[in-house]
Amino acid sequence: MKFKNMAVATLALGLSAAALAQAIGKAEDQIRWRQSVMQTQGWSMGRIKANIEGTFNKDQVIQAANTIQALANSGSGGLFQSGTGTGKGWHDTNVKPEYFTNAAKLKEVGMAYNKEANEMAKVAASGDAAAVKTQFGNLGKSCKGCHDEFRKKENQ
Amino acid sequence: MKFKNMAVATLALGLSAAALAQAIGKAEDQIRWRQSVMQTQGWSMGRIKANIEGTFNKDQVIQAANTIQALANSGSGGLFQSGTGTGKGWHDTNVKPEYFTNAAKLKEVGMAYNKEANEMAKVAASGDAAAVKTQFGNLGKSCKGCHDEFRKKENQ
Repeated sequence: MKFKNMAVATLALGLSAAALAQAIGKAEDQIRWRQSVMQTQGWSMGRIKANIEGTFNKDQVIQAANTIQALANSGSGGLFQSGTGTGKGWHDTNVKPEYFTNAAKLKEVGMAYNKEANEMAKVAASGDAAAVKTQFGNLGKSCKGCHDEFRKKENQ
Repeated sequence: MKFKNMAVATLALGLSAAALAQAIGKAEDQIRWRQSVMQTQGWSMGRIKANIEGTFNKDQVIQAANTIQALANSGSGGLFQSGTGTGKGWHDTNVKPEYFTNAAKLKEVGMAYNKEANEMAKVAASGDAAAVKTQFGNLGKSCKGCHDEFRKKENQ
């Protein structure tokens, strides 16, 4: 754990881009954290998919849906500060330059994802496998909506 | 995204170690996912710490605490199947062999972490900065309780 660095970096996230650059110097931490958030979401999506295609385990689906909901509401957008459009976390970032210039589209796809993630958690709690399948489709589309706009095709 | 592989891997997590080995062959996916979960927890702990030490923003603390709670209840222990004691995800795993042999201690530290993470989310929702500071200390101890037992010192 690198609490000291993390604390500095995280504090900086609330500051201006200039203050951020001064405070942490490197974009690596933000990129590594956002890649970790994405991976955790991917793991969770995979678990729901496996439950839809295999034996449906309500508890597993709830675990995964609650994880996705928490991450969708975690404020991880704060990990895309100015100056993090290139650089390496676990690997080179796949973010497109458009992420930092098309605020209207970003808001649109971000809000769509947030809505579907919140709905996924509600539907998971119901334990209705058919409804989970439908909502999983909606959620997947909202993931794709952002990826198509803002993620490079390579290294996915 | 590698949904197909993830789905296969995740399905396999509910199977025996032999079936798991047959189904996914490699431990890399599990190790990468659990390292991502740990990083996301670390990011969230860092955010709470920054709010305690700097300007307290209730919403940020709630975001971070809810993320930690969801991950603590996500069933990520399922990512430590037999055969994943060595190998590389984002980096070589730091898990100690004892993780796979001392079930009683694992249960003890795991339950302690779960309890403190759930309590952290409750306290965060209250918006009481002093209570958040106290509970952050309790939660940090429960993290350390597991790390001391089951995580190698290097590459932390």
